[in-house]
Amino acid sequence: MNQPAHSKVKRIEGVLSPVVTPFRKDYAPDAERFVKHCKWLLKSGCAGLAVFGTNSEANSMSVAEKRQLLEALVAGGVPAASLMPGTGHCALSDSIEMTRAAVELGCGGVLMLPPFYYKGVSDEGLYRTFAEVIERVGDERLQLYLYHIPPVAQVGITLGLIERLLKKYPASIAGVKDSSGDWNNTKAMLDAFAKSGFDVFAGSEVFLLDNMRGGGKGCITATGNINPGPIDQVYRNWKTADADKLQAGITATRKIVQKQPMIPALKAAIAHFGNDPQWTTCRPPLIELTGDQEKQLISELKAAGFSMPGL
Amino acid sequence: MNQPAHSKVKRIEGVLSPVVTPFRKDYAPDAERFVKHCKWLLKSGCAGLAVFGTNSEANSMSVAEKRQLLEALVAGGVPAASLMPGTGHCALSDSIEMTRAAVELGCGGVLMLPPFYYKGVSDEGLYRTFAEVIERVGDERLQLYLYHIPPVAQVGITLGLIERLLKKYPASIAGVKDSSGDWNNTKAMLDAFAKSGFDVFAGSEVFLLDNMRGGGKGCITATGNINPGPIDQVYRNWKTADADKLQAGITATRKIVQKQPMIPALKAAIAHFGNDPQWTTCRPPLIELTGDQEKQLISELKAAGFSMPGL
Repeated sequence: MNQPAHSKVKRIEGVLSPVVTPFRKDYAPDAERFVKHCKWLLKSGCAGLAVFGTNSEANSMSVAEKRQLLEALVAGGVPAASLMPGTGHCALSDSIEMTRAAVELGCGGVLMLPPFYYKGVSDEGLYRTFAEVIERVGDERLQLYLYHIPPVAQVGITLGLIERLLKKYPASIAGVKDSSGDWNNTKAMLDAFAKSGFDVFAGSEVFLLDNMRGGGKGCITATGNINPGPIDQVYRNWKTADADKLQAGITATRKIVQKQPMIPALKAAIAHFGNDPQWTTCRPPLIELTGDQEKQLISELKAAGFSMPGL
Repeated sequence: MNQPAHSKVKRIEGVLSPVVTPFRKDYAPDAERFVKHCKWLLKSGCAGLAVFGTNSEANSMSVAEKRQLLEALVAGGVPAASLMPGTGHCALSDSIEMTRAAVELGCGGVLMLPPFYYKGVSDEGLYRTFAEVIERVGDERLQLYLYHIPPVAQVGITLGLIERLLKKYPASIAGVKDSSGDWNNTKAMLDAFAKSGFDVFAGSEVFLLDNMRGGGKGCITATGNINPGPIDQVYRNWKTADADKLQAGITATRKIVQKQPMIPALKAAIAHFGNDPQWTTCRPPLIELTGDQEKQLISELKAAGFSMPGL
């Protein structure tokens, strides 16, 4: 497959939330609550929705469950162009199926983990993985964002791998989410590739301002689930004199949340501020916050003046 | 669900091979070669087949692909009672589906990885995972072996978790494969649980003799794919005066193989000694050996007098 040098597709920029997934008491995915939360996020500051990310417990769900949720979103009126679902699995066949489903639904992009079971794999093996997905999906609408999150996946995306993929598939390789937590790595990606139309998203709002100043396109961040408005304000005002002050505000909120295990903490906040206790359920192997953790989280958020308007 | 104190099922004991999976040039699983290799293993020393293990590239395949291969084995005449397929996935729903399929086909057991995407998860979360699978499958034929392989999965099975699961599900929790590579851990599992009908399998034949002497039931080992006969001789003769000498022989063969990346090395050996080059294909992210690696492997095996009779 030979690709044109650039894609003609308008790409998502700004703040994206890796949307947490609501479950029922029996751990079944809850499409109704999911659609409702996605709509709240889009009206509250999110430019896009990175559904099925790490914070979505995506890897705790089957491909079939995720396809059903994705279809429910589109059927429920969430614009497909705003969606950047996670489609990377350990199994090549699952990654192909999920990526194809996302493209066929018209999703604005996909965010793809490398296969993460085998550790210490070669860049050649990872190149073959991404190349195989691109070739098999074989659709020029595909906008593939690489997902670099070595603290969890343990398998990362090197600069050399990006360079090789960009050279072969310039119209499909759209960018990266860098969740390394290492600003030097994000900066290296920006310096090497931002000018060639490769969109770098910080994996946490803590680096949002730095990322925008370095030529990045926004952030995809866990706390986007509960604090999208103020994070979006940093994105919108990054060139203004207020930017550093706005950044300090969202960083402070993040610090409260990340004192607790992140995913159950986000769910606890939505449950509390949305007055909907069912939201606290996590699918095994994750578990809900303890009573004490939840109490600390909510009281600290309230003390900081935090709110979720319109939830 | 309340369980009787013990299972009435006759369990697999001896040498099991985590069977490598053959792929075609287009990376599709090759059921024909798979059935053939499984039959060779059973006639060559393996008491059972731990298909869909780490060495099987199981996590590089979808649930649907694995179900098809499992059905092909049974249809092809491989006794279901000899099968101990891997059924643990990141997604709870995938683990339930695969475990249920294995039990319904009459498999002798299942070997279950913990969910391995999220790191640092609690024993409570892992307990809920295994309990949910056992309850949802809800079949008294289920013989569940826990798969402890922290070097790859990064998420392990603690003694406390085993104790809690054994107490609640004594008829379903059948044993463990310990691939920690740490004999002290295997010994701790033997000392704590072997007497209560919990079958401990060493994850490498290097520990086979020690495991038998400690009250274990055999081993489930990568090199069982190519050297099942001599490994089985250690199992059969562990009480004899020859045992240490036999053990030294299989340990020496293992050391030759593990100089190379294990999975492509096993496939290269099968390709060479079975005169079937297509066997070398690995599914991404794994890749085949380089020419030099393959040359070294085969020449060292030949120099050691290694053979695969009847392949």
